[in-house]
Amino acid sequence: MSNTGRALSGKEVAEHNSRESCWIIVHGKVYDVTDFLDDHPGGSKIILKYAGKDATREYDPIHPPDAITTNLKPDKHLGSVDLSTVEKVEVKITDEERARQARIAARPPLSEILNLHDFEAIAKDVMHEKAWAYYSSAADDEITNRENHAAFHRIWFRPRILRNVIKVDWSTTILGQKSKMPLYITATALGKLGHPDGELNLTRAAAKHGIIQMIPTLASCSFDEIMDAAEPGQVQFFQLYVNKDREITKRIVQHAEKRGIKGLFITVDAPQLGRREKDMRQKFDAEDPSEVSKAGSDGVDRSQGAARAISSFIDPGLNWSDLKWFKSITKMPLILKGVQCWEDALEAYDTGMAGVVLSNHGGRQLDFARSGIEVLVEVVTNLKEKRGLSFPNERFQLFVDGGVRRATDVIKAVALGATAVGVGRPFLYAYSSYGPEGVDKALTILNDEFEMNMRLLGARNIEEIVPEMVDASNIHLHTVAVPSDNLYESNYERLQGARLRTKL
Amino acid sequence: MSNTGRALSGKEVAEHNSRESCWIIVHGKVYDVTDFLDDHPGGSKIILKYAGKDATREYDPIHPPDAITTNLKPDKHLGSVDLSTVEKVEVKITDEERARQARIAARPPLSEILNLHDFEAIAKDVMHEKAWAYYSSAADDEITNRENHAAFHRIWFRPRILRNVIKVDWSTTILGQKSKMPLYITATALGKLGHPDGELNLTRAAAKHGIIQMIPTLASCSFDEIMDAAEPGQVQFFQLYVNKDREITKRIVQHAEKRGIKGLFITVDAPQLGRREKDMRQKFDAEDPSEVSKAGSDGVDRSQGAARAISSFIDPGLNWSDLKWFKSITKMPLILKGVQCWEDALEAYDTGMAGVVLSNHGGRQLDFARSGIEVLVEVVTNLKEKRGLSFPNERFQLFVDGGVRRATDVIKAVALGATAVGVGRPFLYAYSSYGPEGVDKALTILNDEFEMNMRLLGARNIEEIVPEMVDASNIHLHTVAVPSDNLYESNYERLQGARLRTKL
Amino acid sequence: MSNTGRALSGKEVAEHNSRESCWIIVHGKVYDVTDFLDDHPGGSKIILKYAGKDATREYDPIHPPDAITTNLKPDKHLGSVDLSTVEKVEVKITDEERARQARIAARPPLSEILNLHDFEAIAKDVMHEKAWAYYSSAADDEITNRENHAAFHRIWFRPRILRNVIKVDWSTTILGQKSKMPLYITATALGKLGHPDGELNLTRAAAKHGIIQMIPTLASCSFDEIMDAAEPGQVQFFQLYVNKDREITKRIVQHAEKRGIKGLFITVDAPQLGRREKDMRQKFDAEDPSEVSKAGSDGVDRSQGAARAISSFIDPGLNWSDLKWFKSITKMPLILKGVQCWEDALEAYDTGMAGVVLSNHGGRQLDFARSGIEVLVEVVTNLKEKRGLSFPNERFQLFVDGGVRRATDVIKAVALGATAVGVGRPFLYAYSSYGPEGVDKALTILNDEFEMNMRLLGARNIEEIVPEMVDASNIHLHTVAVPSDNLYESNYERLQGARLRTKL
Amino acid sequence: MSNTGRALSGKEVAEHNSRESCWIIVHGKVYDVTDFLDDHPGGSKIILKYAGKDATREYDPIHPPDAITTNLKPDKHLGSVDLSTVEKVEVKITDEERARQARIAARPPLSEILNLHDFEAIAKDVMHEKAWAYYSSAADDEITNRENHAAFHRIWFRPRILRNVIKVDWSTTILGQKSKMPLYITATALGKLGHPDGELNLTRAAAKHGIIQMIPTLASCSFDEIMDAAEPGQVQFFQLYVNKDREITKRIVQHAEKRGIKGLFITVDAPQLGRREKDMRQKFDAEDPSEVSKAGSDGVDRSQGAARAISSFIDPGLNWSDLKWFKSITKMPLILKGVQCWEDALEAYDTGMAGVVLSNHGGRQLDFARSGIEVLVEVVTNLKEKRGLSFPNERFQLFVDGGVRRATDVIKAVALGATAVGVGRPFLYAYSSYGPEGVDKALTILNDEFEMNMRLLGARNIEEIVPEMVDASNIHLHTVAVPSDNLYESNYERLQGARLRTKL
Repeated sequence: MSNTGRALSGKEVAEHNSRESCWIIVHGKVYDVTDFLDDHPGGSKIILKYAGKDATREYDPIHPPDAITTNLKPDKHLGSVDLSTVEKVEVKITDEERARQARIAARPPLSEILNLHDFEAIAKDVMHEKAWAYYSSAADDEITNRENHAAFHRIWFRPRILRNVIKVDWSTTILGQKSKMPLYITATALGKLGHPDGELNLTRAAAKHGIIQMIPTLASCSFDEIMDAAEPGQVQFFQLYVNKDREITKRIVQHAEKRGIKGLFITVDAPQLGRREKDMRQKFDAEDPSEVSKAGSDGVDRSQGAARAISSFIDPGLNWSDLKWFKSITKMPLILKGVQCWEDALEAYDTGMAGVVLSNHGGRQLDFARSGIEVLVEVVTNLKEKRGLSFPNERFQLFVDGGVRRATDVIKAVALGATAVGVGRPFLYAYSSYGPEGVDKALTILNDEFEMNMRLLGARNIEEIVPEMVDASNIHLHTVAVPSDNLYESNYERLQGARLRTKL
Repeated sequence: MSNTGRALSGKEVAEHNSRESCWIIVHGKVYDVTDFLDDHPGGSKIILKYAGKDATREYDPIHPPDAITTNLKPDKHLGSVDLSTVEKVEVKITDEERARQARIAARPPLSEILNLHDFEAIAKDVMHEKAWAYYSSAADDEITNRENHAAFHRIWFRPRILRNVIKVDWSTTILGQKSKMPLYITATALGKLGHPDGELNLTRAAAKHGIIQMIPTLASCSFDEIMDAAEPGQVQFFQLYVNKDREITKRIVQHAEKRGIKGLFITVDAPQLGRREKDMRQKFDAEDPSEVSKAGSDGVDRSQGAARAISSFIDPGLNWSDLKWFKSITKMPLILKGVQCWEDALEAYDTGMAGVVLSNHGGRQLDFARSGIEVLVEVVTNLKEKRGLSFPNERFQLFVDGGVRRATDVIKAVALGATAVGVGRPFLYAYSSYGPEGVDKALTILNDEFEMNMRLLGARNIEEIVPEMVDASNIHLHTVAVPSDNLYESNYERLQGARLRTKL
Repeated sequence: MSNTGRALSGKEVAEHNSRESCWIIVHGKVYDVTDFLDDHPGGSKIILKYAGKDATREYDPIHPPDAITTNLKPDKHLGSVDLSTVEKVEVKITDEERARQARIAARPPLSEILNLHDFEAIAKDVMHEKAWAYYSSAADDEITNRENHAAFHRIWFRPRILRNVIKVDWSTTILGQKSKMPLYITATALGKLGHPDGELNLTRAAAKHGIIQMIPTLASCSFDEIMDAAEPGQVQFFQLYVNKDREITKRIVQHAEKRGIKGLFITVDAPQLGRREKDMRQKFDAEDPSEVSKAGSDGVDRSQGAARAISSFIDPGLNWSDLKWFKSITKMPLILKGVQCWEDALEAYDTGMAGVVLSNHGGRQLDFARSGIEVLVEVVTNLKEKRGLSFPNERFQLFVDGGVRRATDVIKAVALGATAVGVGRPFLYAYSSYGPEGVDKALTILNDEFEMNMRLLGARNIEEIVPEMVDASNIHLHTVAVPSDNLYESNYERLQGARLRTKL
Repeated sequence: MSNTGRALSGKEVAEHNSRESCWIIVHGKVYDVTDFLDDHPGGSKIILKYAGKDATREYDPIHPPDAITTNLKPDKHLGSVDLSTVEKVEVKITDEERARQARIAARPPLSEILNLHDFEAIAKDVMHEKAWAYYSSAADDEITNRENHAAFHRIWFRPRILRNVIKVDWSTTILGQKSKMPLYITATALGKLGHPDGELNLTRAAAKHGIIQMIPTLASCSFDEIMDAAEPGQVQFFQLYVNKDREITKRIVQHAEKRGIKGLFITVDAPQLGRREKDMRQKFDAEDPSEVSKAGSDGVDRSQGAARAISSFIDPGLNWSDLKWFKSITKMPLILKGVQCWEDALEAYDTGMAGVVLSNHGGRQLDFARSGIEVLVEVVTNLKEKRGLSFPNERFQLFVDGGVRRATDVIKAVALGATAVGVGRPFLYAYSSYGPEGVDKALTILNDEFEMNMRLLGARNIEEIVPEMVDASNIHLHTVAVPSDNLYESNYERLQGARLRTKL
């Protein structure tokens, strides 16, 4: 079958509806996925369901726009189909989906959402299970994922009193760009899993609230779609996974610069995408049991191969010597995203980077990597000692992400020397539970929290949030309780206080 | 409608019983609250219930006496009503209230209450839900609120033996005033939420037990009512929220001094009153669902605006330079309430204050503020080092509040240098569960605990409670367990000890 | 009514069967307890049940033998009764007691009891509720009580290998007396609560296993009964509560010496007996509700007064200057029981004591007192530094008690410098669950554990258990977790591992 | 009955089918076990079930091959039986076994097993209860057993970025032998409990994956069977329990050397095999209740005697002076297995050992022994300081075992100086749940984890895994939470976030 100019008819496509010959339609194009069936990360079953049919609706939320063209060899791209000749796929609503719709209807009004935790609680209830699994999952035992949040709990405030805090102002400057808060929306993949508008929800809310969005390489919306959705003058950053093929990378980077991106965040903590077991287990349920048994019995582990396929374009060979090249192809400030020790932060500084993001990729890569906020403390100490730098610093900026849920978390990072903090999942949960209004509300809540807590802390502006305002002396303390003595504890009778009498 | 001398009739008022025109009667006065409906912190529904009627009974426990006059512009004060012409509001008893009354009847006798925890346990069962929510709620994730109690658990005793402890005496002197215990009843708002007599319960018990009450600015009873309820010679302190209008503050302060107040505690940790989410959620339930939906859909967040309204008189501009002025208008000893680091304690000393209360407002303001008892340790160390002070100190007294439940908590604070400790919520719970006898009993229990524990500690009087009697070396330790390894733990089979055989 | 030589008749006694005139018979003697009713710690109801009758059976297990004679003025001792004329009290078996008997029958055979925890588990099930409450309760929030056990978990072993451990010997010498283990049975009150033979169970087992029993002042059996039950040559110590009347104390001490007691342990941590709230709550249930209401309503707190009455003979005036007097009245080695800091241990040494027991009274006195094992570390350090002593030391011996459940606990204490360790509750639970065979088995288990663990540790005898064999560097660490973030945690979805499929 | 050459008949044997005279057949030989009945660790009941019959099927999985010949005096070995004359034992399938078979059928396919935890989860469900109890049990309160895993959680990564990690290689050299991973399969007893092929499952998987198996002395398969199952050139180590009879030991060692063993690991942490209470309790259930009662009533504790019998051949007299002798009888590298402090590691080095395994025997011997990974830190520090050694070190190699579940655990040990890590239980669980494919899959998972995590860590080979890549500063921290304040906590009302509304 050749990839000619002639549009195929729906009928032609419909004939290839089996494991032996399986064509599908995505965005008006026809693809032959017969050989790809066993390599599909989501299992073959879900593809076979759309064999010979239009799979766009199912495909869209869970794939980057170019996933299919990237993973399929050119000769499997069969060209356009005349959509008017394609039969509509009838969507059957399952009981599970019906229950989910009922849960959506039972959401509390947005006015009752008081903090970022609340969005997550509702999102867990109303999102598709798969989408929730993808967003929330993390590496191995998810220790680092939770440590990211827990680390903030080892930092306590030392507030100052009797300062005139009638006016408090938490706006700042990030890489020379104005931001109304010391935080930005960090890059996260597959935004359409949570809402049909995907990353555009974030773009619009960022515009409204005067903060900066970092556009992800693996967005569900295309880069240009997102750029087009921006307001005139709206500042955006771009997160880059570096492709093995540097020409592609060059093209992407220069296109980004041309479109006005103000900072390029090169991800350096993901030479290979992490295994997220919760996400993987989720996929098993989607498999045809007979397929699974086969996989089990013949010992072939398809899930591994597939996971690799998706991230196969990312270059594990990327190294320090590549940075010079980056400087040669763009004038955008370059920031390394995923630095996790002071030695690499120092190297980044010496190499002329504009900054680093101290991050462990939301706990999705190396488990037992330390939290960004903990690394921040050692980076500030060592760069002061070895290069005489003080932070926040205009010329070399420190960013932190992971585990942020409250404005106080952000304030802690700023006090310790961060220019700004990246927030990711909470905004995904915000629009997954309440659509665009959710993100708007999330940012309103953060603003309210900033105002309140800067007053209570006695800091009238970002400069006044100083290291002396926090006690981070416990930040490096990783305590694990001695295992419990179950026999002793089961013998101990818990104290019982006063109780109401049962009726006499 | 003019605010003339003529008393309105009940019938006139009753005509204004709708959202379009809504009048209510409080303490014999008529108010036009039509425009205020949407700004009411408790929601409009509860006001509309009393539209055209006498709302005094509902109003009283949950508002400071002057809340309505302060929040409503003078032209909405419509003057007196002839109460004989007003129809009595019939109170319908809900099922919920009936259940609560049954719980009240099932309280154990007061003789079975053994400690301060017990009052809280019973109060939780017998209080109105809203009242419980208001008293018990705290800021954000309520971490600081619980840390206040937990911090005492990091301090352990080093008791001395073989001292003749036939007589032990825990009386002391606070700001030059005798107190039978090294503790005082600290200021808390809205005392009538728990009992119709509100703060008077505390005044009377304080008199009986020879301790000092700190009268709150936001009391449910008026300041003069409370002063009038005092015994001759009874010592009282006054807690002050500083008003933006300094004339009002001056009037309040000088009136307090004239009435015999012996110490003025200026609150410095609340330029803005904290968001207490438990309390806020409680309010949603009181809303008319239709109102809520509206609020949700139009994106207007009334709860925020309302919360601000209440605390709007508090001056966020209050600062160190104001203290001179305070010294010019009163001779009362001035104490700053809400100091949270040694730097500010030092400043307070240098500014000529009589002392500071190391406090985080019961965890109701800035979450992750450290506990007063922890701050005490750094204050004592630094004021010794930098000003050569030793504590307790007559000229500059240190107070602590937050988290106290046992006399041993108080003793720990005294050992570390505090002159006295403030106790708030436990006394509210005491009268909310058992009325005035509850507070009396609470103080009796504390006296029993003091006697017992001073003997066991080997301290015959307050002077003998010395720093060497406690080990506070862990006080700055804020440990957060490494997140649990759920897979490992779910595989571990807990040891099972000897068990009774099931019948053979 | 005079206390003449004539024996009263059962009929005479039976007439005084009311609250107005209440006589009871105990051990063949008649007592007028009318005025004592309201002061009885167990409440008046239980006495009134036996008004005019023989209360011996109920009295015996829960009182020291002389409780009634001590608490009642001589004119209330009405003399003997002719027991043949007294009607037998018919014992009704309650449903509760029937259930307890069934549980006793369902005990696993003693051969299945593997460790000291197991006795406690069974005792909890088969003891009278009151008895369990009395034995297991501790002061205030029972923090110290549990810390006693927990502290051992902060000490870890550093075992040595490749030593010939064919023969291991854990016998030692305590105050110059041979003991087959480095532990002794420490003094605990009211032994008959758990078994009719009370302390005699311990005397016999101690003889069989070659260890030393410390006889308590508040034993259920009389001192002489216990001494008489000893084997010829069996070594025993005596624990002393010092009476306000020093003549009584002198008589007791000299009698003990005459009967062959080899060490006098003077309790110094109990100038007043602690409030144990679990025990107190237990008593409420035994009260007549009408009595309770009365107590509650008239505000009189009888429980307090009664608790004081019991311990009223103990002298809170006891002090260091008394120790000279003790040395003048006896040649027995004097040991202070209840020392809790190095300063007092040093003082005891300087005063010529033979040793100290580092103890907090099983957590029953001052809550937040540190564990004996923790205090041991500071005592050894400071007495070495300040007096050049090394431990274990023949001339000044250190003992520890509290929280011991395993031979490894004892070994830890010995490694850190203790001569021996006191074990109390576990032996009470052993005979409360299985009678005398229980204590025998408990000691057999300990012997097995000693043999095993000394081999595994590489110590062939007590001298080889050296400080280098333990890591106690965490002993002073009192960690309290930062309060949990409930919202975050309720959002976190615990990882779920592989599971069996439900049937297809 | 003489042990002549004549084969006995099945009928003859069948006559000895009672407690009075009890013969059994194992592997075609007849044994008189009458006198042994009461000493059998598994109780007499199970033997009596096979009295006069062929017990091979039941015997095999739960005994080392020579258990019966070792424990029974030669005169009780009655010679061969003519198997053709022996009646087949009919196996009755119990309900419990039927349920277990159903669980086996419900196992998820192997492709769904994602990590080593998963095998354990399934094994717990599908193994015989006894087998599970034997494999999983540990000493006393199993504190050390769990600490082994927990200790790894106190070590966190400091990953490096921007290294070209296209190729990562985690192969290494152990005692001069190639290994494809820095781990080996360590020795564990009674391999047939989990699968009929026992240790052979491990031998085959080791061959396939290029790693080394350590053959245990107490294997279910005979040493030669295991050696015979190896591939040509496959490297194996041998773990040795030293026999009291050194001639036996010499024979075993020299035979092992002759068969090609490349390293002799002498166990030094087990002069006596530990008491594992879970395992012991499991056995009670296998007892005839009447037997148990007898044991309980006559006070004889058979379980103890039996446990000793099994390990009676192990020489508790083994000591440092024996090592010279070992060097005289073999040229194999000698490694001490079970070293637990730096002093003994130093001694081992000075004595010319080739290395030590820092191990506490999987937590099965001395409870509160520290984890191997913790000991590693002190060993590396002290051997550097006192002997100038750096690690990993070719001449004196350090090994660690205990608690390993992830490749990251292994990497942590390697970073800290270990040459390789021993993994035991996880492989037993792998074949107990899925047979040989299970072990294969387990090793595949580990390889996947190594590849991923070395990339994420920035280490391209074993040499690049350096100490700076981990933060082990918390390794010696053994925290035990201060006991909880139950009354306070039961009063605290957990924060409740946003929730779905119940249907209106």
